[in-house]
This record gives sequence, C-alpha cells and structure tokens, in this order.
Amino acid sequence: MSSPTWFSAAREGYASKGIGSRLSVGHRPALLVVDLAVGFTDDVWAPGCDLDGVVERTAELVRLARTNGHPVIFTTIAFAPDALEGHVWLTKMPGLRCMTEGSPAVAIDPRLGRLDSEPLIVKRAASAFAGTGLASLLATLRVDTLVVTGATTSGCIRATVVDACSAGYPTLVPESCVGDRHEGPHEANLFDIDSKYADVVAFDRARELFDVTVAKERA
Amino acid sequence: MSSPTWFSAAREGYASKGIGSRLSVGHRPALLVVDLAVGFTDDVWAPGCDLDGVVERTAELVRLARTNGHPVIFTTIAFAPDALEGHVWLTKMPGLRCMTEGSPAVAIDPRLGRLDSEPLIVKRAASAFAGTGLASLLATLRVDTLVVTGATTSGCIRATVVDACSAGYPTLVPESCVGDRHEGPHEANLFDIDSKYADVVAFDRARELFDVTVAKERA
Amino acid sequence: MSSPTWFSAAREGYASKGIGSRLSVGHRPALLVVDLAVGFTDDVWAPGCDLDGVVERTAELVRLARTNGHPVIFTTIAFAPDALEGHVWLTKMPGLRCMTEGSPAVAIDPRLGRLDSEPLIVKRAASAFAGTGLASLLATLRVDTLVVTGATTSGCIRATVVDACSAGYPTLVPESCVGDRHEGPHEANLFDIDSKYADVVAFDRARELFDVTVAKERA
Amino acid sequence: MSSPTWFSAAREGYASKGIGSRLSVGHRPALLVVDLAVGFTDDVWAPGCDLDGVVERTAELVRLARTNGHPVIFTTIAFAPDALEGHVWLTKMPGLRCMTEGSPAVAIDPRLGRLDSEPLIVKRAASAFAGTGLASLLATLRVDTLVVTGATTSGCIRATVVDACSAGYPTLVPESCVGDRHEGPHEANLFDIDSKYADVVAFDRARELFDVTVAKERA
Repeated sequence: MSSPTWFSAAREGYASKGIGSRLSVGHRPALLVVDLAVGFTDDVWAPGCDLDGVVERTAELVRLARTNGHPVIFTTIAFAPDALEGHVWLTKMPGLRCMTEGSPAVAIDPRLGRLDSEPLIVKRAASAFAGTGLASLLATLRVDTLVVTGATTSGCIRATVVDACSAGYPTLVPESCVGDRHEGPHEANLFDIDSKYADVVAFDRARELFDVTVAKERA
Repeated sequence: MSSPTWFSAAREGYASKGIGSRLSVGHRPALLVVDLAVGFTDDVWAPGCDLDGVVERTAELVRLARTNGHPVIFTTIAFAPDALEGHVWLTKMPGLRCMTEGSPAVAIDPRLGRLDSEPLIVKRAASAFAGTGLASLLATLRVDTLVVTGATTSGCIRATVVDACSAGYPTLVPESCVGDRHEGPHEANLFDIDSKYADVVAFDRARELFDVTVAKERA
Repeated sequence: MSSPTWFSAAREGYASKGIGSRLSVGHRPALLVVDLAVGFTDDVWAPGCDLDGVVERTAELVRLARTNGHPVIFTTIAFAPDALEGHVWLTKMPGLRCMTEGSPAVAIDPRLGRLDSEPLIVKRAASAFAGTGLASLLATLRVDTLVVTGATTSGCIRATVVDACSAGYPTLVPESCVGDRHEGPHEANLFDIDSKYADVVAFDRARELFDVTVAKERA
Repeated sequence: MSSPTWFSAAREGYASKGIGSRLSVGHRPALLVVDLAVGFTDDVWAPGCDLDGVVERTAELVRLARTNGHPVIFTTIAFAPDALEGHVWLTKMPGLRCMTEGSPAVAIDPRLGRLDSEPLIVKRAASAFAGTGLASLLATLRVDTLVVTGATTSGCIRATVVDACSAGYPTLVPESCVGDRHEGPHEANLFDIDSKYADVVAFDRARELFDVTVAKERA
C-alpha cells in the first residue's frame, strides 16, 4: 500500500511495543466474500463505488476455492421492511436503505457466479458475524482459517476481520481483493488490520492457500 | 480533529452517498470506560502510552455520571494463564501478553476511582462486547444510549463502537476522552466512527447527557 | 399444570434451596411469538401438531399488543438450500427439513394476521436469540420485558426463554399460549422454566401487561 | 434411564416425525466439564447436591483426555460483587448467590485435579456459551466434537448442550457423568437432549473418543 507520512513512524512504534506480528494459518481455509452485492459494485446505487478490480480478483479465488473443494461463503446486506434491525447503522448511513429485502441491490454481483449451494449470510450490521449464524457455519465446516475479500475496507471488511480475530480464526486479507470508496480510509484500515487483527497479504499468498485439494477427511 | 488532506474530500463524497448522518440519543445513558487500565495508561508497560488527558477528562464524566445515578461500566483486558482465549489477537499483538490475570497492569487506573459496586467487564478481545456479558448488562440496566471513552481509538474503542451500533445502542464518543499511541490511526478511526457508527462529539455534549439525575422509574 | 408425582417433591426441594422465586416485570413489554409457522401448526407437516388453542390465545395477545402500540415480534424456522447452518440440529431432527426457505411451511400461521411492518426473525436454531439479530432488535425497541408464546414448549420455547434470562430480560410465559407434541415434555419444561428462568403465568397476567397504551416517550 | 410412562409414547411419536436421530462425531473432541464447582458438589452450599458418582466418572474422563492430549475445559459460576450480570437468573434462583467471585464455592472440585493450564470459563448464565469466550476457545483449539459432563442436567447441562447444537458442535452426553438435584428433571431433560440436541450415551462411548492420542497435526 502507498504510505501517508504517519504509517512508517507508527509501524516502527508498534514494532517496539509488540504490535504487528504475523499469524500462522491452518489447512482448512474458507473464502469469505463480503458484500460484493450489486448495491456496492454498481455505483448507480448510493452505497456503490468502483470495485471492478476487487470483483475480478475475488472471482479468481472463488473459482479456485470452489474447484478444490474449499468452502466459499458470501454475505450481503438486506434490511427487513420494518428496518428495525440495523436501525442505528441506518441512521448513521441512510444511503444503505436501498439494501432492502427483494431489491436488486442485495443480489450478489453476477460476475462472481455464486452457486445456490454456496452459503449466503444475510446481515444487517457491518460485521458478517453480528446477528448471523456465520460462527456456527464455520464450526460446522471445520474451517480453521479465513480469507476475507470484498467491500468496504473501512466498513464491513474491517468489522468482519476484527470479529474473526475475536472468534479465534487466523485471517488473511489479500490487498487487491478489498476495496473502498476513498483511498484514505482504505489505506488507514489496511494499516490497522495488518497491525492488530489479520495479515494483509499479496494476492498470491491467498491463492496458494486454496491451490490444494481438500483433504479427504473433510468430506 | 486536525485533517489529513483526504478527510474533507471523503467526507464530502460520503455526504453525497448518505453516509455520516447524526444520531438521536435517549434518556438512560451509561458511561463505558474502555481499557483505562494501568497497562495502557502507564507507558512502562508495552501497550501503554500517554493517556493523561484522556484519564482526566474521563474521570470528570465518571464522577458526574456516578453522582447523578447513571451506570458507569469499566473494561479491562486480562488473559488467562493458558492464553488460549484471545490467541489470535495475542499472536498479532504479543505486546498485550503483560495483560494477564493477577498482573498490576490489568487494574483500572486509580485516578478513575472505580468503586467495587461498578461493573468491570474482563475481556480478551478488542470489543467490549466480544465474549462478554456486556449486552446482557446493558439490558438489565435498561440503558438506551452509550458514551464510550478510553483507549485505544484505533483498537478497542473502534471495535466496541462498531459492536454498540450493531447491538442497537446510539453511541457518543467525546473526542477528548479517547486516545491512542499515534495521531494517524487516532484521527483516521475517529473519521470512520463518526461517518458510520457513532457521533464523535465535544466533551460538553457528553457531559450534558449525564448532568441530570436519573428518572425515578429507573431505580 | 397437571402434576407427575415428582413435581411437588422437586418444587419443595427447590424452595428450600432458593430456586423458583418470582420476577418483577417492567413497563415496556414485547410479545415474542415463537415458531407459529404453518409447518408447526398444521400437522400435515412433519413438525406439526395440534396448536389450535395456542394460536387462538396468542392471537388475542397479538391484537391487544398491536392495538396498544407494544412491539409484536414473530419467529420462524427457514433453512437455506445448503442446509449447512443448523446442520447438527437437522441431523438430530431430520423432520425439520421441510422448514426450508420458500416452502409454505415457513409462513406464519395466517390466523395470527402478522403485518409486514412487524419484525420476523428467521432462525436456524432452537433459540430465537441464536445467530439472529433479536437481542439488537430488543435494544432498539427499548424493550424491558418479554412475553413468550408459541411452540414447542420443550424445544424452541425452552431454548428462547433460557436465552432471554441470560440476555437480561424478565420473561413471562402464559401457560395456555405455549404447546407441544406431547404432554410429558410440555409439563416437564414448564416446570424447569418456572423454577429457573421465567415466570409461567395465567393468560390474564400476560394480558394485563399489554392492556395499557404505550407511554409517549416510547414513540 | 428409567422411564416415566410418557417417555416411550413420546419417543415413538417423535420417531414418526423425524425427531431423535443420531449424530456422527469428529476426531478432535474436547471434554467440557460444567459447573463441578464446590458450591454444586458439596451440599453444605445451597445449590449443592450429591454428585459424587458424577465427579468420579468425570474425573476418569478428565485423566484420559488430558493424558492423550485432548482439551479439557472447565466452567464455573462466579457473580461479580455488583451481581448485575446474571440479575434475572439470580432473581429466579437466589440460592445461586453464594457463587460469588472469591467464595470457596466457585472453586472447581479438587477431586477433578484441574491444572492451571486448563481453561476455566467463568459464567453468569446457565449456558457455558452465554456471555463467554467458549465459542472462540473451541475455534482456537480446532475442536470438532464436544463431550459435556457435570451439573445440573436440567440447568446448565441442558442450556450448554442446546447452545453447542446451535454453535455447530456434535455433542455427546455420557449419562453417568451428569447429575441433578432430583430424578424427575434429570430424566426429562436427558429425554429432550437425546431427542433434539445431542446423543445421550453410555460412559464407554465417551471414553473411546478420548482413548486415542491426538493426531500430530493438532499440536
């Protein structure tokens, strides 16, 4: 990532305080694709922005993981007509109101080719873990590592990665697979994520993790 | 807050997309003091930094809230000897290992004068909600609004505020009552918090909320 | 409730050990109608049984609460096509497989006249709190008391009531508003609920709670 | 288990409705010992009852699991001095008030020989999952199966097993390793657990699960 002046000073300060170490990953990764729904990937919708590169690189990981038998899990945002669950968030971000059950905005971007058999977590909060069955799903799938992609870096990616850390999952964030509306928050959040919660990695590092077929015991 | 070049452009872009609106608060606020433990407020400990101003302003709110009968809730970090709960976080931030049960680092800073009768949430994750009884406590206390203070802005404050939003609580963050090791992450996280999850406010706005005695029905 | 021989001995033993006391309730109750979906109320579906009386009495409370401005929240069970979330439960209870997204079995019984504006919690677990946004919804609605009705007493009612207790909500269970497939588990679970987690009450006790209009500050 | 008249009729009815099937277990079990604290195992304390057999059989499993490298996790109940977290439960069961931080009642029964390196979950609710880091701990340990023992069958065992099912963990309950104050609730809850959430099994079935050394990949 490019570097605002404060990044290098902060990273150095962190290193001296035991902040910013690396994780080890396991052998049963899942790919978690966060909010690459039409309302985010097509900027005719209020929450949307240019995520073409993010969708393209994520689609590569989706195909690879699927082919090799690794779980691929999608999330979207879809508020109920009453809009009560998620009320505080919607008050701060009224632009999200288009993400309502039944709207075309909540559908996963067709370029990702999601299969009906692939889990779709419907959320009404920033984190994919908040008020959803994601933690239960990961236990059922015996996942031991997460690769998180999607949007936005400063919103649902950050929130999901913090919760993944709390939930006990070592997590990788391939830098070219996450995106945001503005570079500033994108970079500042990658800095925090990489310092405190997960490893921000190059695309190939995430690719390698899915480039093996799943051990038989899994099935 | 001071403004990196990208803040104003991003804020303008957000406004055009329905991001960054204001919340309304209720009449039963609680003060949540996050991680103002000795290990954070005294920089002889690895996680520590200069938080004297934060402690001083927070102490004012603590006294006011306590006097007027509003709940004051403290959090600290205290890992078990096995260090299994919180394992991923400790791997990223080994500097937190000093925050272990029984260490003087986990005690709340004495300048805050915490009373034994005031709840202390012990956590092993960034968010005060993760793996704790905080949500249950807030329901029991019939709280409808949170004021969050403490440290660090880019760590436990951010994580707690995101979860407060998901948990259904309108939240205020008085700017002078939160602090961090470096200005860059401090400011970038205040920007995100104020744009998406809670209202970053002046000290007096938070002060006013506690400057009324609690309605009788509460007791 | 009718009484197997062990009930009175156990109740007496409990009383001597400080088990089975009464709760006080608040002034902002919500009515939580658990799983009165067609798949449960119509016994052409595997999970179904005779719940006509339960539906009728619950419908009375629904109308009263709605008229007086108290929140009415419904739950149903609806598994995704992948059936991964809820996998362990479905393995124990394969009869629940008919409760799949899009099936007529998951619709709320029409005799309850649920309005589109009334929240519907979709769950894949026994408890209405597990993997759902119910706790967040209750905070948003500033609820301080729950009345739980529906089915089954030994399944989703028990699980929901235990979690309501943990979540900090005093809870009433009007006996004629909950039902089950067999009398044995129904009675044994009412016994446990009343001893440890909530107050099992007569219909009129629950009715009174909703028979007042909502205080203005709520709106 | 012995059989009240309704058990066989209900079990038959359940079988015809797809209720009461068997689970398959994995290869990475953990032993979860629920609330075998002095306040429960010694009846000088209000919540206590005769659990000598339960402690003895559980101790066998503890030793075996420990020797073979399987995780052993203990829980206890310990309310804070403010007694706010757990308030509703304590109101229903004031007899639990002796389970307060620092009291000898909260210590794990010494006959189980818990090691300092073995995780201890401190809870203020019936379920070991409610308001605790247990789910995170299980993910960190890469556990795929639970064996739940302890007390009481109709209280914390039932609540924990229901949540284990929701959390995605196939669970075994060895019948001789769980106990209660009265036979009626003990048997009725084993019936429910075995019908809907977990497999109630003979001691030897649980023993076998731990009677293998842990696969190398685990360490």
